[in-house]
Amino acid sequence: MFESAELGHKIDKETYKQTVPLLRADLLDVQYELKEQRKFPVIILVSGQDGAGKGETINILYEWMDPRYISTLAFSAPTDEERQRPFMWRYWRALPPKGRIGIFAGSWYSSPIHDRIEGGMTQAQMDQRIDQINRFEQMLVNEGALVLKFWFHLTKEGQKRRLKALEKDPRTAWRVTKWNWERLKTYDQLQEVAGHVLRMTNTPWAPWIIVEGEDDRYRSLTTGKIILEAIRKRLSDQDKQATPVAPPIQPNIDGRDVISELDLTKKLTKKEYEEQLAKWQGRLAELIRDPRFKQHSVICVFEGADAAGKGGAIRRVAAAMDARDYQIVPIAAPTEEERAQPYLWRFWRHIPRVGRVTIFDRSWYGRVLVERVEGFCAEADWLRAYSEINDFEHELAEAGAIVVKFWLQISKDEQLKRFKERENTEYKRFKITEEDWRNREKWDAYHQAVCDMVDRTSTGTAPWTLIEANDKAYARVKVLRTLCERIEAALEETPRPKEKKAKKGKKD
Amino acid sequence: MFESAELGHKIDKETYKQTVPLLRADLLDVQYELKEQRKFPVIILVSGQDGAGKGETINILYEWMDPRYISTLAFSAPTDEERQRPFMWRYWRALPPKGRIGIFAGSWYSSPIHDRIEGGMTQAQMDQRIDQINRFEQMLVNEGALVLKFWFHLTKEGQKRRLKALEKDPRTAWRVTKWNWERLKTYDQLQEVAGHVLRMTNTPWAPWIIVEGEDDRYRSLTTGKIILEAIRKRLSDQDKQATPVAPPIQPNIDGRDVISELDLTKKLTKKEYEEQLAKWQGRLAELIRDPRFKQHSVICVFEGADAAGKGGAIRRVAAAMDARDYQIVPIAAPTEEERAQPYLWRFWRHIPRVGRVTIFDRSWYGRVLVERVEGFCAEADWLRAYSEINDFEHELAEAGAIVVKFWLQISKDEQLKRFKERENTEYKRFKITEEDWRNREKWDAYHQAVCDMVDRTSTGTAPWTLIEANDKAYARVKVLRTLCERIEAALEETPRPKEKKAKKGKKD
Repeated sequence: MFESAELGHKIDKETYKQTVPLLRADLLDVQYELKEQRKFPVIILVSGQDGAGKGETINILYEWMDPRYISTLAFSAPTDEERQRPFMWRYWRALPPKGRIGIFAGSWYSSPIHDRIEGGMTQAQMDQRIDQINRFEQMLVNEGALVLKFWFHLTKEGQKRRLKALEKDPRTAWRVTKWNWERLKTYDQLQEVAGHVLRMTNTPWAPWIIVEGEDDRYRSLTTGKIILEAIRKRLSDQDKQATPVAPPIQPNIDGRDVISELDLTKKLTKKEYEEQLAKWQGRLAELIRDPRFKQHSVICVFEGADAAGKGGAIRRVAAAMDARDYQIVPIAAPTEEERAQPYLWRFWRHIPRVGRVTIFDRSWYGRVLVERVEGFCAEADWLRAYSEINDFEHELAEAGAIVVKFWLQISKDEQLKRFKERENTEYKRFKITEEDWRNREKWDAYHQAVCDMVDRTSTGTAPWTLIEANDKAYARVKVLRTLCERIEAALEETPRPKEKKAKKGKKD
Repeated sequence: MFESAELGHKIDKETYKQTVPLLRADLLDVQYELKEQRKFPVIILVSGQDGAGKGETINILYEWMDPRYISTLAFSAPTDEERQRPFMWRYWRALPPKGRIGIFAGSWYSSPIHDRIEGGMTQAQMDQRIDQINRFEQMLVNEGALVLKFWFHLTKEGQKRRLKALEKDPRTAWRVTKWNWERLKTYDQLQEVAGHVLRMTNTPWAPWIIVEGEDDRYRSLTTGKIILEAIRKRLSDQDKQATPVAPPIQPNIDGRDVISELDLTKKLTKKEYEEQLAKWQGRLAELIRDPRFKQHSVICVFEGADAAGKGGAIRRVAAAMDARDYQIVPIAAPTEEERAQPYLWRFWRHIPRVGRVTIFDRSWYGRVLVERVEGFCAEADWLRAYSEINDFEHELAEAGAIVVKFWLQISKDEQLKRFKERENTEYKRFKITEEDWRNREKWDAYHQAVCDMVDRTSTGTAPWTLIEANDKAYARVKVLRTLCERIEAALEETPRPKEKKAKKGKKD
């Protein structure tokens, strides 16, 4: 894997001086075209051996291009806001918007490689992380991003020479710390671990680019030219490549499906409703205050037909909690900033930290519901969305989130009744629009989309709960009960926090 | 101040039951109208004595209104991302956008009141903070926000009764902690401090609303009605109130001003330039790596006539630093999300944490330059911007930021020469647009605006440096030198960090 980067590549001063001016002009050109087109972001990962010129490369890119449209993200120890959310959250929040270049000095690769070498991470855990990374990068590429992963390589001897040279030069001496020399000792280990990671993540959509790091001129020119050609090629690709990403939708040949099977006659009497509402609201209030909940969060998704009673159900859930503990996020059309990012970005930004609850009133499932049915996105895009969503929810769950998803179903007749009621009630009129009537005409298409959604995204960690919602009382209680049961189950598997003394495993 | 809230107000059950349904319907109505109009945000501060019903009030507002368009912000100990930025940063990032209601459970008042009682804050420090808060709220109101500040009051006896009642009820017992009982002991002290703060911040633009907290029904109804009337009134105010906020601009009667006085013939030879550039870049690199810099940040503003060489100067500054240590923020038209917030919001979001550098390529001064000259905002708005900007920069400086502002000036002839050059150079053509030519026609208006800007916003903590920029070499060196001198001056006043042992004042 590293052989080509151990040949002792060198570029002489003269060639360098002749080549650079043109390269710079070309890089500037493509950068401005990128900025004008605003069609995709460029994500550059800069990684490799210490002393192999990572920092120098970033600085030279800034010199050669317009630094105003580049951002560099350096990641050291996560901040507490980051620690309290899923692993990938900090990278999502750092993604460059379309038209910009984002350089990741340190990336989602750094901490797994580091943790593996330091021994905190098993091979199996690392392979899981690698799998997650591959899926993440595939999503980025499918969303249009150009992902360039650089690994700057040095031989062990070369690393020693570089560190010495850096140390000798007063302008760079400060960059060589004791830590770097320590790292030299783990050279073999890093090579082994990195070799494995690079091999496993050397995907067709985001392959590694390994560059020999010893000669400054060779390294800079190579990197610059690769970036230039990659951006140029993507700019000239008129159409987005259509990547087949999911098998076609399964046909329904006997007319039976999860939605049709629902018994929409289920109902509660007023008395039952009042008793059970109070019971489950009380239970929810307790669960949220359980000390074990501090290690979890709840991410609750409400989807459903128009007028199925999402709002009413959400209010009954909210009423059981302290307003300071939850946030309701109504999902409408994406804003300008959100449109300049991958589809899931606008949901990531609302992910709660541990100890808190976020309720999504409509959600990322819009991709496979309204966007699919209305043709707002290409088939390839919503087809791949199923697995992207599964990955997303898996990451949330991995970080302790309890992901609870509700689909509220009413019959077509019940919907008509409610629409008419809304039109005739002064203070409900805002709730009914032309769009609702238009959506209603596509009832069957939505029906199919919901069935496919449930089939493909009801997973063990984040199952769908289908709610029979013709009777509002029944629906609300079932929502509350399900929510309580899911939280309860999660808490049962959570050890009670120890006494304060034992915190962080230290003896006092 | 609290007398009216000690009368033992009470509402009987019957009246309450009769009044609430209509109030709820009305509140929903105004909330939806607020959401539709999207003209202003509603900021509700909920503060007061423990047990006076702060939490209950928030919860009832959620019950009465549509919780999807309300957010509640609770502030406890600042996160490390917040601690590393100015005091007000966490509140800025939590502001609701236009059309939404944001409830602050705990606000910019909490920590000064707390710190004053706990003894960490002197009276003078608190009065400074109060002054800052008044200016902040005035800015919010001038930006169109409706600010409602509630203080829920209890007598000492009343507080005791409430705590006991809460403790008795199993549904609320969890909310009464030992801490609350402790607070009862400091009742008198809180009353004294809060009384002072409330008096000093009882401004015409954001007066305090003091509500007796003992009777739930009285408190809820009062709060609900006040919110209803306040939003309703603001919705019906067709025009934004014009608040006279700054004295008129001073006339220039002898033709002399800070811009005309600049000697634009200043220049450097190529040799001088190369030597001095290297010298100051080296110096800057050292200063940024100085351990004392960890307690500061640099916020660097570049403004200047079109083609004055801002980009070139920025690149020379950037070249001296590690790309991981700085961010360049080019300011263009605000995005949708930014337009839904007060003017300064979009700059607050880029404020660096300590140890880092942010370079603004154009800045908040757009308000008093292009927006003033082009008539993009009302006169009252740009007139008040001067003091808002001064407050803003003062807050930055207070948190350790070194605010360095450059105005790059060229002559009208030099600009023409550069415009033509740009039109004739292939790779510079992107730099010149129709707009540049249009701006040029308004040369004199900009000239006046720049002079006023310098007069009104060149402060001791954040002075303007005017750069004679007809000669690019001279300009770049002066920028670098000034920047170095400002950082150096700040570092000289900064104690060197102690040995690690002494950190946090603990003995090992």
